[in-house]
Amino acid sequence: MFIPGISDIIAASEAIAGFVHRTPVLTSHQIDNISGAHLLFKCENFQKVGAFKFRGATNAVINLTDEQRLNGVVTHSSGNHAAALAHAAVTRGVKAYIVMPSTAPEVKKKAVAGYGAEITFCEPTLASREAAAAEVIRRTGAILIHPFDNFNIIAGQGTAALEILTDYPSADAIIAPVGGGGLLSGTAIAARHLLPGIKIYGAEPALADDAARSLHTGTLQPALPPKTIADGLLTSLCERTFTIIRQNADDIFTVTEDQIIDAMRLVWERMKIIIEPSSAVPLAAVLANKSVFTDKTVAIIISGGNADLSKLPFGQRA
Amino acid sequence: MFIPGISDIIAASEAIAGFVHRTPVLTSHQIDNISGAHLLFKCENFQKVGAFKFRGATNAVINLTDEQRLNGVVTHSSGNHAAALAHAAVTRGVKAYIVMPSTAPEVKKKAVAGYGAEITFCEPTLASREAAAAEVIRRTGAILIHPFDNFNIIAGQGTAALEILTDYPSADAIIAPVGGGGLLSGTAIAARHLLPGIKIYGAEPALADDAARSLHTGTLQPALPPKTIADGLLTSLCERTFTIIRQNADDIFTVTEDQIIDAMRLVWERMKIIIEPSSAVPLAAVLANKSVFTDKTVAIIISGGNADLSKLPFGQRA
Repeated sequence: MFIPGISDIIAASEAIAGFVHRTPVLTSHQIDNISGAHLLFKCENFQKVGAFKFRGATNAVINLTDEQRLNGVVTHSSGNHAAALAHAAVTRGVKAYIVMPSTAPEVKKKAVAGYGAEITFCEPTLASREAAAAEVIRRTGAILIHPFDNFNIIAGQGTAALEILTDYPSADAIIAPVGGGGLLSGTAIAARHLLPGIKIYGAEPALADDAARSLHTGTLQPALPPKTIADGLLTSLCERTFTIIRQNADDIFTVTEDQIIDAMRLVWERMKIIIEPSSAVPLAAVLANKSVFTDKTVAIIISGGNADLSKLPFGQRA
Repeated sequence: MFIPGISDIIAASEAIAGFVHRTPVLTSHQIDNISGAHLLFKCENFQKVGAFKFRGATNAVINLTDEQRLNGVVTHSSGNHAAALAHAAVTRGVKAYIVMPSTAPEVKKKAVAGYGAEITFCEPTLASREAAAAEVIRRTGAILIHPFDNFNIIAGQGTAALEILTDYPSADAIIAPVGGGGLLSGTAIAARHLLPGIKIYGAEPALADDAARSLHTGTLQPALPPKTIADGLLTSLCERTFTIIRQNADDIFTVTEDQIIDAMRLVWERMKIIIEPSSAVPLAAVLANKSVFTDKTVAIIISGGNADLSKLPFGQRA
């Protein structure tokens, strides 16, 4: 099991620099006032394909051997990794096969198809995804680019933290959402090496709290049935991401569905930017644990902006 | 009837510089591909109070005499001007009285109250607004700061165009939404003087097309019953804004409600920024008149981002 170091993240940053956006860091006086902290939002919702996943996918495709490029790449993903890999591969002349759960948001299905990938739909379970991907590999010889259990993916995801902490070395803490743990792993490696004293946190829906339970019990916990609104965080840690997170993360917070929706709405209303539910989880954790963050400078990775506008959680309010 | 010149807009720009954001100009490869034009979005949705209105309101408050400051300011507005004037006044220790239609979006009512203004609700008609404002003036001695029929307001609104055309002097055209015409008037004065050959366009909902009919007939047309989703554009031109627009604007386009919603959705989905329906009207006009804008560099004033998230127009789509 190979684990990237800071040099791998720096190498990834240089390799992908011409292909990914160096996304802006936004702030909000109003949300600072509400939180009592100074929040720095690293806006990967403005990244290509609308998510940080394009960083890891680009790094993975750049690192293919010539032989691997010929047979193409395959993955299974709840959406953003699929779009990211499709776009990263197809624009480099590499065929992309994507296995998606049939329940994935419509906007993500359309995006993947639009990038020129060949889609195979499956049931929304890890077993079904893996079986469908295995069948594609048998048929085509494509190489699996796992959404998070992959060295180059983790190194690529860490470049977002590398950028924000290079720009803001005064950060006291950094917090990222946790699904399979690729983003938090890359973030944790980058943060721990750049700023050894920084606090590193994950944030997770309480309805998908396998990472928090894994960290707190010290053993990798199984996946839960998927039911959170944060559709990017339905997956569970793997041994590789669990190992990295256990070595580097200070804690993982869990938040309720209402806290996620309220945080998402707060960002939409006050900052006028679109973030997807998964991206609201870290802010929800900050707002639910104010005493931890009082007067701290906190870097928040806004992971993506691919919200399905046909299924928004904002009801009629008085 | 006084009409600002370019020197008044430059003076306003200098006066308000410390108080307003110099908003970013964003671009979108995807929307450029769809439109066939190169579009520059001046993002006043990121302006304080979430709308360009803060420019004019700040300029108006800065230009109050000492005596006027003592009695306070009053206005009637569909929302963004109200929030803007409230914030501009109260932060300078000037009392703000705001007359709002009871039908104004909830998010705008909350914003005005939050800025510390005293609100009077009225019926959503111009007559009701004016009567309620007159009553406030009688009672308090406050000075009316009209949302658009005001020299300093128009000069302030023109500073957004001043900024984008100073940064992008290669623009072939500029387009702004039209309600009462304050923004388009300021935009037209700035654009015509900075870039004499530029095309200057307004964009208006077909359901509130009084400005287009006024321009096309050469006489000021009366208001229509308010029913467009673009709630910031329900008001009609006054003599002052009509005079400026007739002197400087090349045309005013009208668009359907569906075109407004589709353009709004396009910006939300592709650019990941929140714009209010009124702000989608110029892009809708560009997309509905592609041959006019083919291969042109077009500056679009995104007027605001105060969409009511509890009343979004995005239905369930397959």
